[in-house]
Amino acid sequence: MFKRKGVRPQWQEKPPPAGSYRSIFKYGDPQKFKHPSLSWVNMLKADLGMTDEDFKARIHEGLSPVDLKRNSRLLPEHIEKFSGILGRENITTDAYERLKYACGKTTEEMMELSRGRVGEISDLVVHPRHKEDVRDILRYCNDNYIPIYPFSGGSSVTLGLRPEKGGVTLAMGTHMNRLLTLNETNQTATVQPGMMGPAFEAALNQAPERFMAKRRYTCGHFPQSFEYSTVGGWVAAFGSGQASTYYGDAADLVISQEYITPSGDFKTLDYPATATGPRLNHMMIGSEGTFGVLVEISLKIFRYQPDNRRYFSFMFPTWHAAVDSAREMAQGEFGRPAVYRISDPEETERGLQLYGLPSPVNALLKRRGFKPTKRSLCLGTVEGDRDVTRLVKHKIRRLAKSYGALYLGEYGAKKWEKTRYTEPMMREDLNDYGITIDTLETSVSWDRLHALHQGVRRYIKGRPQTICMTHASHFYSSGTNLYFIFIGRFESTAVFKQFHRGIIDHIQKCGGSLSHHHGVGRMMAPWMEAHLGTEQMAALRALKKHFDPNNIMNPGGQLGLDLPREKMRHS
Amino acid sequence: MFKRKGVRPQWQEKPPPAGSYRSIFKYGDPQKFKHPSLSWVNMLKADLGMTDEDFKARIHEGLSPVDLKRNSRLLPEHIEKFSGILGRENITTDAYERLKYACGKTTEEMMELSRGRVGEISDLVVHPRHKEDVRDILRYCNDNYIPIYPFSGGSSVTLGLRPEKGGVTLAMGTHMNRLLTLNETNQTATVQPGMMGPAFEAALNQAPERFMAKRRYTCGHFPQSFEYSTVGGWVAAFGSGQASTYYGDAADLVISQEYITPSGDFKTLDYPATATGPRLNHMMIGSEGTFGVLVEISLKIFRYQPDNRRYFSFMFPTWHAAVDSAREMAQGEFGRPAVYRISDPEETERGLQLYGLPSPVNALLKRRGFKPTKRSLCLGTVEGDRDVTRLVKHKIRRLAKSYGALYLGEYGAKKWEKTRYTEPMMREDLNDYGITIDTLETSVSWDRLHALHQGVRRYIKGRPQTICMTHASHFYSSGTNLYFIFIGRFESTAVFKQFHRGIIDHIQKCGGSLSHHHGVGRMMAPWMEAHLGTEQMAALRALKKHFDPNNIMNPGGQLGLDLPREKMRHS
Repeated sequence: MFKRKGVRPQWQEKPPPAGSYRSIFKYGDPQKFKHPSLSWVNMLKADLGMTDEDFKARIHEGLSPVDLKRNSRLLPEHIEKFSGILGRENITTDAYERLKYACGKTTEEMMELSRGRVGEISDLVVHPRHKEDVRDILRYCNDNYIPIYPFSGGSSVTLGLRPEKGGVTLAMGTHMNRLLTLNETNQTATVQPGMMGPAFEAALNQAPERFMAKRRYTCGHFPQSFEYSTVGGWVAAFGSGQASTYYGDAADLVISQEYITPSGDFKTLDYPATATGPRLNHMMIGSEGTFGVLVEISLKIFRYQPDNRRYFSFMFPTWHAAVDSAREMAQGEFGRPAVYRISDPEETERGLQLYGLPSPVNALLKRRGFKPTKRSLCLGTVEGDRDVTRLVKHKIRRLAKSYGALYLGEYGAKKWEKTRYTEPMMREDLNDYGITIDTLETSVSWDRLHALHQGVRRYIKGRPQTICMTHASHFYSSGTNLYFIFIGRFESTAVFKQFHRGIIDHIQKCGGSLSHHHGVGRMMAPWMEAHLGTEQMAALRALKKHFDPNNIMNPGGQLGLDLPREKMRHS
Repeated sequence: MFKRKGVRPQWQEKPPPAGSYRSIFKYGDPQKFKHPSLSWVNMLKADLGMTDEDFKARIHEGLSPVDLKRNSRLLPEHIEKFSGILGRENITTDAYERLKYACGKTTEEMMELSRGRVGEISDLVVHPRHKEDVRDILRYCNDNYIPIYPFSGGSSVTLGLRPEKGGVTLAMGTHMNRLLTLNETNQTATVQPGMMGPAFEAALNQAPERFMAKRRYTCGHFPQSFEYSTVGGWVAAFGSGQASTYYGDAADLVISQEYITPSGDFKTLDYPATATGPRLNHMMIGSEGTFGVLVEISLKIFRYQPDNRRYFSFMFPTWHAAVDSAREMAQGEFGRPAVYRISDPEETERGLQLYGLPSPVNALLKRRGFKPTKRSLCLGTVEGDRDVTRLVKHKIRRLAKSYGALYLGEYGAKKWEKTRYTEPMMREDLNDYGITIDTLETSVSWDRLHALHQGVRRYIKGRPQTICMTHASHFYSSGTNLYFIFIGRFESTAVFKQFHRGIIDHIQKCGGSLSHHHGVGRMMAPWMEAHLGTEQMAALRALKKHFDPNNIMNPGGQLGLDLPREKMRHS
């Protein structure tokens, strides 16, 4: 275990100053911090070749006030018009606001902002109050060829919110953030797209008090960004929650959606299933604001039964054993866990060294021959009916044992659950000292998993002093995802970007998908045509042209739809 | 129970004469028959006001040879070209063959054919040997504006195969009917679209013998048409099998598809999940041959564990109790049954009278106060892991009991399973005596179910001497399907059609979907635009135009895409 002593770096303890760059790029609540532990610092020193000296002075903190001399390029008559639609209080041309709503949480955005560098911003931010506002704005923008950028939670990690062509940003979360109806008979909820995860979940958990419902419910969707992402964002970018193995991905939860598009408005069919031609409901999921604006969503909800939740963790002797057991779990038809995570040996070892295990457990692992650099940690939860969760946990345990795993009790899974949303908060601290942590994810069929894991690791580890931790956390009968976390020091954003783009290249070369659950945005856009193939890309463009003939919806590279050929990658 | 005595009608016992109309419309194996029992005959006499006299002479049997004086309108040079592509043995202009491949199993097709009346037929039938053939044919047809009609199993009940504009029919089942690869690691199978259900299932069941696989598998998809439908048809028409509550609908099984379209060829991504924009895989499912030709499909497969299958049947005191219990089953998160069917009181009563129950059971039901015209039968199976099926059956049983149901053992479900594919074989026998049996299905959310059931029943039962039986057999957390079976005597096809179309009108008026699992074809096409709305229909048309700009793919009303405005219904 990394030592818990040494010099504690002076982490930034203060909320970002109002109006500063940092107030824009800091992840999560401005008041909340999660500083790296001393174990973290010692790991970084050991593996990134850093010394106390490197932790003496914070660099690129982005504490200075945003100083933008960019006037809105919208004509006064346009601004007048928006003011007339929404009221003066719901529009702004203030440069800070325009920057704030132009940024997501992509690592390179943070790196740039911390250096006071700003990309494209829109010319006006508007806060629609309801779908009628959205409709009026959209009609006007379409008639006047003004680009529109929907902004909801702002947690995009794929440059999905950058207003490349200027125009108007729609801040969907300000007003359009309510749960509209809860239908207990159908077990569905209809919400506005700007509703944040915790507000949605709280409303469902408290259904009896708030809606005189008979039961409590849960949304079943808990991405790591849960606290700072919205229901609309989950659907628009094809999200997947940490309990997706049981509840399904965001796409599986959507019953119906209402869209306002330049070519017309519609609500997709809300039947439980329907055989009436290709389903529009599916055609819109993942369109990332390029077809129109999502203004209402009906989703499946589930019974909230936290008392039935069961936790487990195991140590597998090897990554191969952990993968084989996971595959058997996903194909074994004995029910599914909600959370299920397997860490590769590097992630396992670092996890143990950073977060530790009770020492008798460590001793036991040693005695039983679970070797560091070989062994793989697994943890998870089971949800649902009381009797079934008992049986499913029992089956998972028996299965793991048959692959040589040692049951480690509930501790690991419970500890993970407590900290699962706050980990990203360390990244600004690390960035302050020139350390970059970032992640990339992919999905892959079982038969290509090891080649992909090894191939991508080989690339990342080929860079000196670079940490690479990998886990699989979403399980399907035909495969899983792989989530790569890498940490290193990069001389510049450009150097970082080059390395990062190389990972994307390698993921695809090794048989992984371009994105499992982070969407595409503008970051993955250059690969889209090669990844999907010309014909499929052409079909997406045909839909785009149909819904948005003037290309006002999130133009400038999103999904690669209007990306100039010279910006495409063909690896 | 209807008496089992009386005069037995002279059912047609002979296989249809070669070349006859009947050889085209008879459902299933020409050698196989399932004649209505005497209980059936007595029920029809009682409820349709028929006498022995009505069963004396068979009418409209369609035994005469097909006598078609329709020359192929294709130019000799075209025919020459197809002959060059496929070989002379794989093309035909024979009128009988052209009619055979122009017909599905829609009831009104049977009624017309039994009277020697023929609708549109294509000008040439071709039997592609592989996807290269399909590609060559498609390119040639596109260049020459020749319509193409894919024909696979031929079991369409929505006029989905009718070559309204003449041209070429592709008989996909003749050669393109093989299982290409079985991937045990990913638990997927890749098949050609023309593979029939039983061949596919047999190949999977016998995987160890045929593919040296470690396990046996099942496809999990068992529609009533299973024996006479193909994998391609299941996907193209958004099918759903009788065990869908556990295995999912056809759309849920599809991992990836390969299409040849006039605008280009492609294979959709085969990752377990992918967040790279709207999924082409979903855009193609349900396109019913209007976008291109499906030439290869990869599907999830499941472990074949027939020994773990558990059967159950119950009697519920009322339809409402059966529905409430089913809803709780679908939302209760304790696992799902594979087959689950609840019959409304009319179907329950007729089922008991036609097929019977052991008399001690009848006595018990009476003693316990389960009233005819109120009570509702439920039957089903549980599949999957041995321990889990035991628990799930136990939970279903306890749940049913809490809604006042009486457990009736395994008998009903096992009996149903034995006869589930052969019921449609009675329809020609009934047609011989001027009796028409037909079905329509819809899906509906739980909160609209009773209004829909009552509304549609009111319409059907408003016609004198008409039987209406209803069941729900596919369960989702937000709702279910309703399957209406109606039986009556109709003076003419026109009178039948008018009544039938009235049912479709009422299904939609009462809040049901236009189709749950039979697709759209040309039968539902007139309602499509009103059902989906102008905007969504326009989006489907945009895709159609993209893939098939010359409208050569299944033109003439399919999905309502090119239906003239005057043929649309606006109910």
